[in-house]
Amino acid sequence: MRNFTYQNRTEMIFGKDVENNVGQKLKGLAKKVLIHYGGGSVVASGLLDRIKESLNQAGVAYVELGGVKPNPKIGLVREGVALCREESVDFILAVGGGSVIDSAKAIGIGFYHEGDVWDYFIQKVSVKETLPVGVVLTIPAAGSESSNGCVITNEENEYKRSAGSKIMRPVFAFLNPELTYTLPPYQTACGIVDMFAHVLERYFTNEKGVNLTDRLCEATLKTIVEQGLAVMANPLDYNARAEIMWAGAIAHNGSLGLGRSEDWGSHMIEHEISGIYDIAHGAGLAIVFPAWMQYVHQHDLGRFVQYAEMVWGIPTEGRDEDAVARAAIEATKRFFKQLGMPISFEDGNLPTDKIEEMAEKTVENGPVGSFIKLDKGDVIRILKIAADLK
Amino acid sequence: MRNFTYQNRTEMIFGKDVENNVGQKLKGLAKKVLIHYGGGSVVASGLLDRIKESLNQAGVAYVELGGVKPNPKIGLVREGVALCREESVDFILAVGGGSVIDSAKAIGIGFYHEGDVWDYFIQKVSVKETLPVGVVLTIPAAGSESSNGCVITNEENEYKRSAGSKIMRPVFAFLNPELTYTLPPYQTACGIVDMFAHVLERYFTNEKGVNLTDRLCEATLKTIVEQGLAVMANPLDYNARAEIMWAGAIAHNGSLGLGRSEDWGSHMIEHEISGIYDIAHGAGLAIVFPAWMQYVHQHDLGRFVQYAEMVWGIPTEGRDEDAVARAAIEATKRFFKQLGMPISFEDGNLPTDKIEEMAEKTVENGPVGSFIKLDKGDVIRILKIAADLK
Repeated sequence: MRNFTYQNRTEMIFGKDVENNVGQKLKGLAKKVLIHYGGGSVVASGLLDRIKESLNQAGVAYVELGGVKPNPKIGLVREGVALCREESVDFILAVGGGSVIDSAKAIGIGFYHEGDVWDYFIQKVSVKETLPVGVVLTIPAAGSESSNGCVITNEENEYKRSAGSKIMRPVFAFLNPELTYTLPPYQTACGIVDMFAHVLERYFTNEKGVNLTDRLCEATLKTIVEQGLAVMANPLDYNARAEIMWAGAIAHNGSLGLGRSEDWGSHMIEHEISGIYDIAHGAGLAIVFPAWMQYVHQHDLGRFVQYAEMVWGIPTEGRDEDAVARAAIEATKRFFKQLGMPISFEDGNLPTDKIEEMAEKTVENGPVGSFIKLDKGDVIRILKIAADLK
Repeated sequence: MRNFTYQNRTEMIFGKDVENNVGQKLKGLAKKVLIHYGGGSVVASGLLDRIKESLNQAGVAYVELGGVKPNPKIGLVREGVALCREESVDFILAVGGGSVIDSAKAIGIGFYHEGDVWDYFIQKVSVKETLPVGVVLTIPAAGSESSNGCVITNEENEYKRSAGSKIMRPVFAFLNPELTYTLPPYQTACGIVDMFAHVLERYFTNEKGVNLTDRLCEATLKTIVEQGLAVMANPLDYNARAEIMWAGAIAHNGSLGLGRSEDWGSHMIEHEISGIYDIAHGAGLAIVFPAWMQYVHQHDLGRFVQYAEMVWGIPTEGRDEDAVARAAIEATKRFFKQLGMPISFEDGNLPTDKIEEMAEKTVENGPVGSFIKLDKGDVIRILKIAADLK
């Protein structure tokens, strides 16, 4: 086990109706809040109005900035930074899913940088300060509600890049599973794949002697499979929605990766797909992960056999390790398909003519991944497997 | 799943040699530190000297108070409070195991109460403020290094009582598994039972729809069994020591009980045993838990069957539920015996003539436990089972 440091300051306020206390929570924390959101459902459902009412009742001043899109764009972040400065905002409240939270986090750090906020995402400057961010979560997926980073897309050059710092964890997050009842099935499914992938990135490690985190990863993966399918079958199942919402936070709060090397190769590859084609991140991950697994599984068959046994309950005794590993990859694909996700470019109706470009961008700062380090050739081969995987 | 709020601010600094940075860590956080410890091994091993050297090098002033005993006593806490006031201490550094940390936490809250610090433990006053507490952990067991409470014994009346508040979580905790290499096997074993029991208290719940936390509990329990036996077999196995050390923190940082009712009946009963006989808390739990399980298992056979299957790998198909549950209780006893723990009063060489008094004290504020509420008669029957359990 490796040495590590872990601290997660985010206060998680979980359950029915909790978001009605957001005004009271902000009182004393903020003089003027930027309410940041996407549009559509947050407005139509009346949630945004309820949040504003809660702030009004608590006497907390606010300004608004909506319009966050999936794969949130640097352009809107720049607008947000300018608005926060003009309006002397001292707290950002993200009302939405991972895209909104990530956009809010980017505005929070951009506020303290005189140059362009994109500088953080190309490692030109590092994060030293941020406006505090709070969250009312509506989509369980990204885990951004208590994670220490964010991912932003530069719409000018189709780059999708991340920035992170321990000070970027939100101050609080309200998680009401009932707010997720009305998510379209596709979006629910993308979220389920996203959180599943967040655990996989930590599970596939070369580190030995990490049994506790292995078991915790497997516990979370199994629950995401079981409760994910339950949510798809019955969107109004409160407990299943609650389990998935909490799993999304656990999957990406960092606790499952402690003492281990983490991989993140698949995420890096996926970022180039959604950066170019603007598809949902979860759908992109469903396309990349099975291909990645197929490409790397012989590197550590034992770990894939463990994955097969502990997550999928595949019998292993007396069986060929490669066959067991392949069965686990099949089970993973089957799960994604059951969720209605694409598992190939073909499935997702994406062209494959930019594979070379995507691979080039993926490795432009050097090889990606850790379980196996992937160079450009590896990435091309993985994307080619992903092209028409069945 | 129930509504919940969770925040764990403790910074966990884990791994080899980490404690050498404690002085640097305290710089800026503290003007004058109380170094609080037990004695014996912390002194003999040279750890205390290294800690002091680290503070000296960082230019952090300190005073010392040693002498904490297992089942830490209110008398020393009172001394600590007086010392902190005299010396204008503004930070307490606990160097030791759960007893030392609990004593430090009690001093921290006592500092802000004009009356007797015991008032917190009889609910005469509630915790509103505390001196910050930091930890260098030497015994993985109590989980106090990131928990929100403490347990103190009043040596005048043999009462053992707890106090808690979210502000009582330590600011930081240094966890170096190598510091636990030299623990006597009995103390290692007591710690293993203690952390195992912390998970059981959360696992045996009446709450439905808590699959994720169920799985996380089972993951932790399984790891404690596997790695606990590995540590007993090879005390110098770094990874096993590390897994047990981290499991102790996970078991009691509150995350495994979220959204659930927790039980704590067995702990309440045990407190009366160690309060009177001053035995190790872990040993007391090894005596109480199997008897508690035997007494309550028919309340929810399904949960005991799940415990049998998921933690102990006991085959369940086509078998009588009661038989499976009993097999799980047997497995639990066997584990405690393998660790060298007593599983009965007889085993522990304790008299049974105070069963009535212990039961009386256990329920003096009303029934205890939640899985089944236990009144005085229940507690007597459990203690009688524990008297000579085989």
